[in-house]
Amino acid sequence: MKSVVIEEPGKLVMQERDIPEPAKGEVRVKVKLAGICGSDSHIYHGKNPFAKYPRVIGHEFFGIIDAVGNGVDASRIGQRVAVDPVVSCGHCYPCSVGRPNVCSELQVIGVHRDGGFSQYACAPEQNAYLVPDSISDEFATTIEPFTIAANILSHLKPTAQDIALVYGAGPMGITVIQALKGVYGVKQIIIVDRIPERLTMAKECGADLAIDNSNLSLVDELQKLGIRPTVIVDGACHPTILQEAITIASPAARIGLMGFSSDPCTITQQGITSKELSIFSSRLNSKRFPMVIEWMAEKKINPAKFITHRFDYTQVIDALEVFEKDQKHCCKILLKF
Amino acid sequence: MKSVVIEEPGKLVMQERDIPEPAKGEVRVKVKLAGICGSDSHIYHGKNPFAKYPRVIGHEFFGIIDAVGNGVDASRIGQRVAVDPVVSCGHCYPCSVGRPNVCSELQVIGVHRDGGFSQYACAPEQNAYLVPDSISDEFATTIEPFTIAANILSHLKPTAQDIALVYGAGPMGITVIQALKGVYGVKQIIIVDRIPERLTMAKECGADLAIDNSNLSLVDELQKLGIRPTVIVDGACHPTILQEAITIASPAARIGLMGFSSDPCTITQQGITSKELSIFSSRLNSKRFPMVIEWMAEKKINPAKFITHRFDYTQVIDALEVFEKDQKHCCKILLKF
Repeated sequence: MKSVVIEEPGKLVMQERDIPEPAKGEVRVKVKLAGICGSDSHIYHGKNPFAKYPRVIGHEFFGIIDAVGNGVDASRIGQRVAVDPVVSCGHCYPCSVGRPNVCSELQVIGVHRDGGFSQYACAPEQNAYLVPDSISDEFATTIEPFTIAANILSHLKPTAQDIALVYGAGPMGITVIQALKGVYGVKQIIIVDRIPERLTMAKECGADLAIDNSNLSLVDELQKLGIRPTVIVDGACHPTILQEAITIASPAARIGLMGFSSDPCTITQQGITSKELSIFSSRLNSKRFPMVIEWMAEKKINPAKFITHRFDYTQVIDALEVFEKDQKHCCKILLKF
Repeated sequence: MKSVVIEEPGKLVMQERDIPEPAKGEVRVKVKLAGICGSDSHIYHGKNPFAKYPRVIGHEFFGIIDAVGNGVDASRIGQRVAVDPVVSCGHCYPCSVGRPNVCSELQVIGVHRDGGFSQYACAPEQNAYLVPDSISDEFATTIEPFTIAANILSHLKPTAQDIALVYGAGPMGITVIQALKGVYGVKQIIIVDRIPERLTMAKECGADLAIDNSNLSLVDELQKLGIRPTVIVDGACHPTILQEAITIASPAARIGLMGFSSDPCTITQQGITSKELSIFSSRLNSKRFPMVIEWMAEKKINPAKFITHRFDYTQVIDALEVFEKDQKHCCKILLKF
């Protein structure tokens, strides 16, 4: 089979490998489609602190189960499945409190172990979620990115009373906006970005107000508009955003962080405690696949507005280049295997 | 009547004032006892950003209702009451989501309006909570400081699975420890402070392990002991603590902040998101008086271990001096009116 392998930072090769045999408790998936995520690009360029090389990247993938390991019901062969990349031990403290996404022995498919940019990939059977026929192959491939939104929003618990502000109209921001609108029905959604084309897309996905902050102070602009967000999601992940979020937040607001920057981030605690803010972080997803499958089946979210490009897997280098360079037009790229 | 008035920062006077008449919806309380809190000292020294002068300080007080304003049932006269200092509008966004403690028009008795270091004090009738006979006058005076612990712990939601670490064995730390032990029954409580006498008191109040970090690295010490706290409360409120808390926290841990420092606090977001930590702040209390009255009535907490000094109100300057200077032996001081 062919696999997309990052041999070392900066070196991507299309490798011929043996088709893997599913281990005990695993299924083998014949991959049909996979999505490109920022983390794939980070691993490619040596910017992911968790990746070990060589590595088959890809943690957003969909396919058909074509073989099962010992202990797995053979009737699963033929199932259309979306694969949760989070592999956890099931018995550590985080696992015991329903947080397998920060398991002490966390293994992420496509990061810590070989992933889905490959004609075949193995995964623990409980990670392969049956996709109902009402969800297309392409949509199913976007379940994983929507679980990122589902995860942070499960922490933030938005309600119809909330005024939500989302930083960054990239893939994370867009999925968050769709869920805020279609699932949680918040009162108002404000999107903040510096690329007009992305702001337009965010509005098409449910944002009520788009603010281009390339040439204005967001703090002043919101003050002028009389808006105090009660839920803020940092989907842009720059370390300077947190203090601005603290400043613009309503008292009793919740702030959601997804950034992994190791650069220093300076805040003042008075800004937090005087308004009794809560700051939630979110990493990957903790068993949010069933939730997102339900959202999609009920058409509460619309992946069609999110998928912008399609490439054959053999063109993965071109696809990564578009993903990295064409921020104006590119949101989610699917690779066809 | 006599009132303890801070005329301006640094200037405390015992003033003769007219006994106030309760306004519509208010009760007047003949104050019997009041507790000294750090905020009183901060207002005295001009370090509270919210205080206006002149100000009668005191927001922890207990007494007997001796008069009621229009619209208040006269049968309340004679009730033994503990007074919640948080006065809120009831209709802004924070109030509408059960967070009157960060009301947009917040008025704190003893901070924004005159307080309880006075022979008489008025308060909205709903702020005066009936104290059952089973709770002594002295214990009732400590309901308010325990609501500070109740408030932060209501955000952190400790469980029997938690390993809790508390920074600072002052009044906030001690009340938090008592509640963690007696109410929430967490698995283990670690107290961290630099004053041996305070550590001893914390152990008497329920801490399982006391760490004096005046001459050691807490990070190294916990690593040596194999302890990864799942709940961390910063009751010491120094801005450098947050990053250390992030470092020592278990994945999926919750961190509670109560500090009001306006000094910069530098953290890294990678430390937060890689472990999916949540950071809750807590200010004052949001209607936690009934909760604490229940804890006290059921003897889940023990204020006797917390009250260290008693003074007549006429000795308030001496009392404040002990409070500020004798950190070794002083926890809660009560003033008798």
